Amino acid sequence: MKAINPATGEAFGAEFARSSRAELEAMAEAALGAVEWLADARGEVVAGFLDDCVARLDGDRAGIAQVAHEETALPLSPRLSEVEFNRMCLQMREAAKCLRDESWREVARDAANNLRAELAPLGGAVLAIGPSNFPLAFNGVSGGDFCAAIAARNPVIAKAHPGHPNTTARIFGHIAAARDAAGLPAAAVQLFYDCAPEDGLALLAHRGVAALGFTGSRASGLALKAACDALGKPASLEMASVNPVFVASGAAATRAEAVADAWSASLLLGGGQFCTKPGVIVVAGRETAERVANRAAEVLRAAAPAVLLTEATRAHLSRAVAAMRGAGLRMACGGEARGPGFRHDATLFVASGAEARRHRELVLAEAFGPLGVVVVVESDAELVEFARALDGQLASTVVADPSDDAARRALFAVLRFKAGRLLAEAMPTGVVVSPAMVHGGPFPATGDARFTAVGLPAAARRFSKALCWDRV
Amino acid sequence: MKAINPATGEAFGAEFARSSRAELEAMAEAALGAVEWLADARGEVVAGFLDDCVARLDGDRAGIAQVAHEETALPLSPRLSEVEFNRMCLQMREAAKCLRDESWREVARDAANNLRAELAPLGGAVLAIGPSNFPLAFNGVSGGDFCAAIAARNPVIAKAHPGHPNTTARIFGHIAAARDAAGLPAAAVQLFYDCAPEDGLALLAHRGVAALGFTGSRASGLALKAACDALGKPASLEMASVNPVFVASGAAATRAEAVADAWSASLLLGGGQFCTKPGVIVVAGRETAERVANRAAEVLRAAAPAVLLTEATRAHLSRAVAAMRGAGLRMACGGEARGPGFRHDATLFVASGAEARRHRELVLAEAFGPLGVVVVVESDAELVEFARALDGQLASTVVADPSDDAARRALFAVLRFKAGRLLAEAMPTGVVVSPAMVHGGPFPATGDARFTAVGLPAAARRFSKALCWDRV
Repeated sequence: MKAINPATGEAFGAEFARSSRAELEAMAEAALGAVEWLADARGEVVAGFLDDCVARLDGDRAGIAQVAHEETALPLSPRLSEVEFNRMCLQMREAAKCLRDESWREVARDAANNLRAELAPLGGAVLAIGPSNFPLAFNGVSGGDFCAAIAARNPVIAKAHPGHPNTTARIFGHIAAARDAAGLPAAAVQLFYDCAPEDGLALLAHRGVAALGFTGSRASGLALKAACDALGKPASLEMASVNPVFVASGAAATRAEAVADAWSASLLLGGGQFCTKPGVIVVAGRETAERVANRAAEVLRAAAPAVLLTEATRAHLSRAVAAMRGAGLRMACGGEARGPGFRHDATLFVASGAEARRHRELVLAEAFGPLGVVVVVESDAELVEFARALDGQLASTVVADPSDDAARRALFAVLRFKAGRLLAEAMPTGVVVSPAMVHGGPFPATGDARFTAVGLPAAARRFSKALCWDRV
Repeated sequence: MKAINPATGEAFGAEFARSSRAELEAMAEAALGAVEWLADARGEVVAGFLDDCVARLDGDRAGIAQVAHEETALPLSPRLSEVEFNRMCLQMREAAKCLRDESWREVARDAANNLRAELAPLGGAVLAIGPSNFPLAFNGVSGGDFCAAIAARNPVIAKAHPGHPNTTARIFGHIAAARDAAGLPAAAVQLFYDCAPEDGLALLAHRGVAALGFTGSRASGLALKAACDALGKPASLEMASVNPVFVASGAAATRAEAVADAWSASLLLGGGQFCTKPGVIVVAGRETAERVANRAAEVLRAAAPAVLLTEATRAHLSRAVAAMRGAGLRMACGGEARGPGFRHDATLFVASGAEARRHRELVLAEAFGPLGVVVVVESDAELVEFARALDGQLASTVVADPSDDAARRALFAVLRFKAGRLLAEAMPTGVVVSPAMVHGGPFPATGDARFTAVGLPAAARRFSKALCWDRV
């Protein structure tokens, strides 16, 4: 396997080998040997390892960002070299803080009964499989799942995403050096690049792997979920979401164009390849909704074709566009794949509420890339009905004027059960790293609405087990 | 369906009807109508409902305990009328406390970013299916799952256990009266008695049911887990566990008989029908292990045959005994089913470490009833190896003298990954209701090691969703 530059379509860089089943099982076996070491280590030692990771990565910031840019075509600055790089480092610092203050353990004591409950490591490795769209901050070997797994003192076995193997190798060089310098066992953090799907499932089934952290497509996520469910192993799965924006009739009438501008900008961010992309905007009031659609079409028409992360990303987007056209939805702009590399026009569809209901599996399906749908509904009541029929989402936004108070309340009353994060006015792209964040949501946006993938110490709970010491 | 007195085998009391699929789906639909009411109610109103439940139940304590005794043959006093009754009431009071202090929400705030994260209701009912062995404190309509679901402001749809429908009806009479008096919607708490298995799965799949709380057999639990997993709905499953006791060589030598007495008493408690029954005791040192086995056999031989909860419970026990005899394990006492009703001898098997490994699926399988296995191992090292090969357990005990310090440490170092609750010296029966309790454990003892079924507010987390208000 070689990396491909999405801007040109050309392969470059080192050749990465596929690991055999025996190699993967050896990693899982080795991880078992690191379990007790990590569980018993002084928190300061593991925290110091993470601090050193940050220092080493920061010393190679320009180089890492440059490779990531070549592999993903994501903007070098500020996106990769500042925003995402800083996020990666901040998450490591937060994990180090957890290891120092032990806040992730959520200790409860009962002196009268001589009980102590706490969260504890799982007893095996976390298999961390990161996505294509965050080569640094969600990388299996440096991202949120890595940090949460280490914070809860579990070994990590990371699988590199095929979209950015050179970035991953470069990051892992620093992580492994920090690991060795801190005296952590080599099996505390391990990495592989590629495997046959059936060998990946064998790795998951190995007793050395205790849990899965996955961010990616719904199809892959559901297959991995089924495997974990059958094994009784916890899985943290972030899959797909269209993060709908609801615009109440009053706000739509007074600020159709401003809302369209905010939505279009959020939609286009990172080539439309955020898991929090607001793929759908539902606007109450036929005329004002058309104003939103017209303005958004203007903005999208003016945008340069986006360079998508991989050929598969673009193919998925092209299939989504073709399916919507085939269903007779009105395409307001865009629609074409472009070269060189994996480019695609910013593309807008407009659907009535009835069309959106009839083709809900198309309109509400996530597709990475600069694709958005304006859903035109007649009234605030129809807005609420649309919300009520939603499946689980990562996030959802309500845009409302003071005159829309009843609609705003009715929307939040429904959406609180539908999404992990609710926003007023603000678009959902941009997820703050904070203990008060929830990056999660009901199935099928994620595998389990009870958890968050962002924000320590809560995110560490995904990779821990409850343990009570009873008169010990 | 009618109740059966396990002491006589005779049916008695009211006839309970099987609910149709349409009736079950109507309950789920009705529950949806109660979701927003419960989410928005003042905490004091729902807490007051629980306080009133306690008052009404307490006023009928003798009557409820008497019916439960007739249906389950569990001892009237102190077991049912005091210990379990008080536990039921305590859990309701703890849930009321949660509703008043909102501790279950685990609120996290970030003023700088205007974020608030909290746990929130799920948006649908919790289907609560209780076990045979705790007709009050784990009843679907009054037990731990009921309390946790209501604490997190979810409607409850309870299924009565066929082993104690009259008890459940009598309890539900009080719960429903309190519900109506407090002005809660009727669909806040609903009950049905029986259904076809496929209709139960249809109920689970209905959008009005958001989660499952189940305590019962591994076979039923795994079938329900598969259904919930496919639907992406959270399931809290407490299944089966043998809760092994490990006796280090020093302690075995100095106090074989005392250890045997403590173990036998715990084993026989409630007819051996606790999910925390220590079904297996592993003793280091061949001669001393034989002393433990001999003394336990004496105690069990002297015990009256236990009356088991249902005919199916006894049949399951008889099959376990027959399988162990068929495998050639040495039966030290007991072995026979008795009348009238569903009685069975207290029964002891003795196995070597090698036999236990060869027949681990028999020795480590939970069987309700007065059945225990002494596993005789050669050394403390073999004790640790036995622990390392365990599947998930609810609880595990280490018995060790000061001279056994190394073995004690080595055992806990392994067992912390194997069980939800670790005990020193104490037998695992007797689970204190405390925020510092963990009644849980790795699969397949439960469905998910990250949760506890006992101890609010943590137990409410099972039936809640993470929610962030982002600049709202």
